[in-house]
Amino acid sequence: MSTVYDVTRWAIPGRPGVTAKHDVGAVINSIIADIKAKQPSQASKPGAVIYIPPGDYSLKTRVVIDISYLQIKGSGHGFASLSIRYNTADTSGWHELNPGASHIKVENTDGHAEAFLVTRGGAPRLSSIQFRDFCIDGVSFTPNQNSYRNGKIGIRIGSDNDALKVAGMGFVYLERALINNGADAFDVTENFIAECGSCVELTGASQASKITNNLIGAGFTGFSIFAENAEGLLVQGNNIFPRGRSMVHLKTSNRCSITGNRFQAFYPGMIDFEGVNKENLIVGNHFRRVPEGFPPLQNFNNGKDDLYGLIHLVGDNNMVSTNIFSFDVPTASITPSGATPTMILVAGGDANFISNNHFATNTTTHHVVLDAGTTRTKVLDSGATEQILAFSTDYALRPTP
Amino acid sequence: MSTVYDVTRWAIPGRPGVTAKHDVGAVINSIIADIKAKQPSQASKPGAVIYIPPGDYSLKTRVVIDISYLQIKGSGHGFASLSIRYNTADTSGWHELNPGASHIKVENTDGHAEAFLVTRGGAPRLSSIQFRDFCIDGVSFTPNQNSYRNGKIGIRIGSDNDALKVAGMGFVYLERALINNGADAFDVTENFIAECGSCVELTGASQASKITNNLIGAGFTGFSIFAENAEGLLVQGNNIFPRGRSMVHLKTSNRCSITGNRFQAFYPGMIDFEGVNKENLIVGNHFRRVPEGFPPLQNFNNGKDDLYGLIHLVGDNNMVSTNIFSFDVPTASITPSGATPTMILVAGGDANFISNNHFATNTTTHHVVLDAGTTRTKVLDSGATEQILAFSTDYALRPTP
Amino acid sequence: MSTVYDVTRWAIPGRPGVTAKHDVGAVINSIIADIKAKQPSQASKPGAVIYIPPGDYSLKTRVVIDISYLQIKGSGHGFASLSIRYNTADTSGWHELNPGASHIKVENTDGHAEAFLVTRGGAPRLSSIQFRDFCIDGVSFTPNQNSYRNGKIGIRIGSDNDALKVAGMGFVYLERALINNGADAFDVTENFIAECGSCVELTGASQASKITNNLIGAGFTGFSIFAENAEGLLVQGNNIFPRGRSMVHLKTSNRCSITGNRFQAFYPGMIDFEGVNKENLIVGNHFRRVPEGFPPLQNFNNGKDDLYGLIHLVGDNNMVSTNIFSFDVPTASITPSGATPTMILVAGGDANFISNNHFATNTTTHHVVLDAGTTRTKVLDSGATEQILAFSTDYALRPTP
Repeated sequence: MSTVYDVTRWAIPGRPGVTAKHDVGAVINSIIADIKAKQPSQASKPGAVIYIPPGDYSLKTRVVIDISYLQIKGSGHGFASLSIRYNTADTSGWHELNPGASHIKVENTDGHAEAFLVTRGGAPRLSSIQFRDFCIDGVSFTPNQNSYRNGKIGIRIGSDNDALKVAGMGFVYLERALINNGADAFDVTENFIAECGSCVELTGASQASKITNNLIGAGFTGFSIFAENAEGLLVQGNNIFPRGRSMVHLKTSNRCSITGNRFQAFYPGMIDFEGVNKENLIVGNHFRRVPEGFPPLQNFNNGKDDLYGLIHLVGDNNMVSTNIFSFDVPTASITPSGATPTMILVAGGDANFISNNHFATNTTTHHVVLDAGTTRTKVLDSGATEQILAFSTDYALRPTP
Repeated sequence: MSTVYDVTRWAIPGRPGVTAKHDVGAVINSIIADIKAKQPSQASKPGAVIYIPPGDYSLKTRVVIDISYLQIKGSGHGFASLSIRYNTADTSGWHELNPGASHIKVENTDGHAEAFLVTRGGAPRLSSIQFRDFCIDGVSFTPNQNSYRNGKIGIRIGSDNDALKVAGMGFVYLERALINNGADAFDVTENFIAECGSCVELTGASQASKITNNLIGAGFTGFSIFAENAEGLLVQGNNIFPRGRSMVHLKTSNRCSITGNRFQAFYPGMIDFEGVNKENLIVGNHFRRVPEGFPPLQNFNNGKDDLYGLIHLVGDNNMVSTNIFSFDVPTASITPSGATPTMILVAGGDANFISNNHFATNTTTHHVVLDAGTTRTKVLDSGATEQILAFSTDYALRPTP
Repeated sequence: MSTVYDVTRWAIPGRPGVTAKHDVGAVINSIIADIKAKQPSQASKPGAVIYIPPGDYSLKTRVVIDISYLQIKGSGHGFASLSIRYNTADTSGWHELNPGASHIKVENTDGHAEAFLVTRGGAPRLSSIQFRDFCIDGVSFTPNQNSYRNGKIGIRIGSDNDALKVAGMGFVYLERALINNGADAFDVTENFIAECGSCVELTGASQASKITNNLIGAGFTGFSIFAENAEGLLVQGNNIFPRGRSMVHLKTSNRCSITGNRFQAFYPGMIDFEGVNKENLIVGNHFRRVPEGFPPLQNFNNGKDDLYGLIHLVGDNNMVSTNIFSFDVPTASITPSGATPTMILVAGGDANFISNNHFATNTTTHHVVLDAGTTRTKVLDSGATEQILAFSTDYALRPTP
């Protein structure tokens, strides 16, 4: 009685014509039913591994995972840029057109948005499900290949969960790549998530999770990383490239760390705080802001102007220290026209701590702007006096010598 | 002659009744004997891979590894919270009770404490053994499920070694999860090590090792990470949650880095220095201290009071910079009663460098306390004058403006 | 029609005598030909996985990879120190002599330097090729085992490429381990690359790549990490040990991050900037400099004297902050004789920002030296006035209190 399954070798009971090539979702659901049938004891339900060999698979039926310890695993994230392909006039001479490796094309005909849904009621929470080393490809954005819109979701985890892991995966051309609602100790590492509307979203609430050592880049309307009501999220050591309405968007999240990342963006609001966010740490990051360079997308942006701040803070006791900001935007592209761009905006809150940041800018900027409602902000070694603009009087400033 | 073994397909010569389900330890020892028999040439001993498919396996006999290059691999770390299970009155309606995936239950009947012992005399040192992606489960703490005591050890590496790797593993309900005595270039990454007395212990001495990108949380009597006589250990990008008598405990260790981690603790002594420790770097971490929140464990702690320091330093030239400290403990819970809690205590040593730290506390605290024997400490931008308490006169202070 | 290949089970059509043991390169090339023959449609070319079980394999023919999505995978990096072996007088009693696991001995008889060459003309760029978990061993440096010279290259990626990954690999005794010319979003993680002349070289130009969570150490003539014309490279969370002519060498590279690494070196020039390099971030690293300790290599070095700087900067707006420097070199070993060693040298450039660094040195050193051509450098909290030596007058200094 093996616990190792291969989607290419599985025959769905009673449906011999449905292979993994035609509907890998139906095949995986059938395998999961088999796993459940074979682990009937409450005391022994170790799950299984479902292997997806390299190949092209259509997913027409949503996979529903309601067992712990399942690992779904392929042999490579298989990312290829569909954005370049769809914006190339003639690809007739190309070697290949599509992503690959263990490559799932999301083509649901079941009316569902998700390729994979993880959910279960009752107790305990689902634990230790793993997605590893395969490709989830949304195939196209229709009708506009540059819209980041197709309603497709790669993986949605819908119920509270513990110790889940998404590692080595590729996600491409999905409106939303990966959503986890109710994460505890969630581990997102070594993935390649790009050309998706939004990349990683921790919704509902989460604790003690980490998003580390990934390559990530979202669309202009979505988020590279989004977290609401997060406690103690660690965003560490990622290379996050454009676009992304914001690159890390925290909503009423506290005590999260954003450290040691490299960020490159085409718009303001690279780090964006929504609602009140407290005691977050933003240290050792590289912030690069340039104009959109890809002609097909130069008409799009996230709607924020250059007074919004590359970092937009709302909340108390956040620490922004020891980062470098590299801003290189032609004066003619700055909005509102003639404005002095803001690097760090403290839009509200008490006792925020901004220290030891360096700024390399092609034009005059305000390194730090303190809005009127802010109190007790510290601004240390982050610019000359004229580079700090305060609409509040309740702050301490030590200009960089 | 295959070098790929599967524990479920191996028959121990002469012992047909002993399967992996009954004693995976005996099976692995028999496989190792086979590997050794088939690689008799000194010039060609490449080892093998032993695969543990998803399933529940009892380990009754300690595995002894005395060959280099062996990889033992499963399909998932399989962690589930036994602490929640054992503290739930009625689990009769639960979907499952135990951890899973490639799940080894440590149930030695051979009188040994370890599930896996790695050791060899002679030269060269054992090299490049790997443990990957399976679960080592101590099953229970007896008689008290909240004691973190059962005498069980997951993996103990007992002789000098080079380039070993523990990756993607799960450890749960072991008194000591992972011990390496004499590590060189040891790599501990992507693991889930929780609800163990102690999690990672580098004993004896070590050099050039790293503990990176893990999720870790120990018991109230043990260590999340312990290192003695370590040189150049890198503790980076981990999310370390409660409990842990200390979360990183350095004993006479020098030039280690503790950077970019998120720490949450229920007790003082989050970073604890024993003996004299020199030139260590503590940068870019998030330190969160709250009271124990789990009722069954609220009577336990690590015995240290709030004057001990969240960071307790002893030694010379250590650098503590650009961290955030978030302390939220009700006044009534502070010990000694009425005390002003200490965030960073320099208990002894010369030329320690404490700079650019931010503190968010629910009550008045001393950000930095310098004991009488300390010399030449620098305290820069880490609090107002009244938040620094010095029993020495040999220090330099620049209060935060 | 399987996409999963095993080198030990493949027979080269028409060449039955050539097995993986004899020439794994010829076997892999034959497998690649088969993969290409079986994926003739432009719309469906998902690649394959080629598995290398543990074993010793000779590579006599260079592998040429010209398809996307190929994964070549083994079961362990198999590193063992050949340096210790070749410098041991009598190894007759040793347990084993060579590296192992999935172990490829580079013994080309085809006149090529590379074990693996990745290259393709036309469009699109090669994408998502992965090398994982095997060992590439150069076998020996001849005639001098301590020369780091044998002309052998492990992997050379010769044409523009996207989303490639090298993970879990071992490289040993190669003159050059891993070269990528034209990388986009290249991911080098969890590798063990040591005792090679040079370890990781990003040549030509690259963008948005990362070298994270590795153990790395090069020879005295080569580079642990080299990058030219790189944009936004992230070097994060690595433990980089000796030797290395330089440990991170940036040549006309901009906006790269070197954060959270541990560096140990035997020579100056640990971080070395060649040409003009702008807006790079060097934060949260541990720099340790000691003399060469291994007798057979004590006569070698990288030719730089102690005035060169542990960090040698050339360029504008680079930020060096919140690092610790530990320098312990006997006075008699310092060159030029009697010189005051330099920790950070700004050899040229504008607006470099050096702040909040700590130094523990066994002798008097200059923490920061500013050469005559430098302009507008900031030096904050990085030493006393006498520890900063400026040949320029265009700088700002705030001595550490």
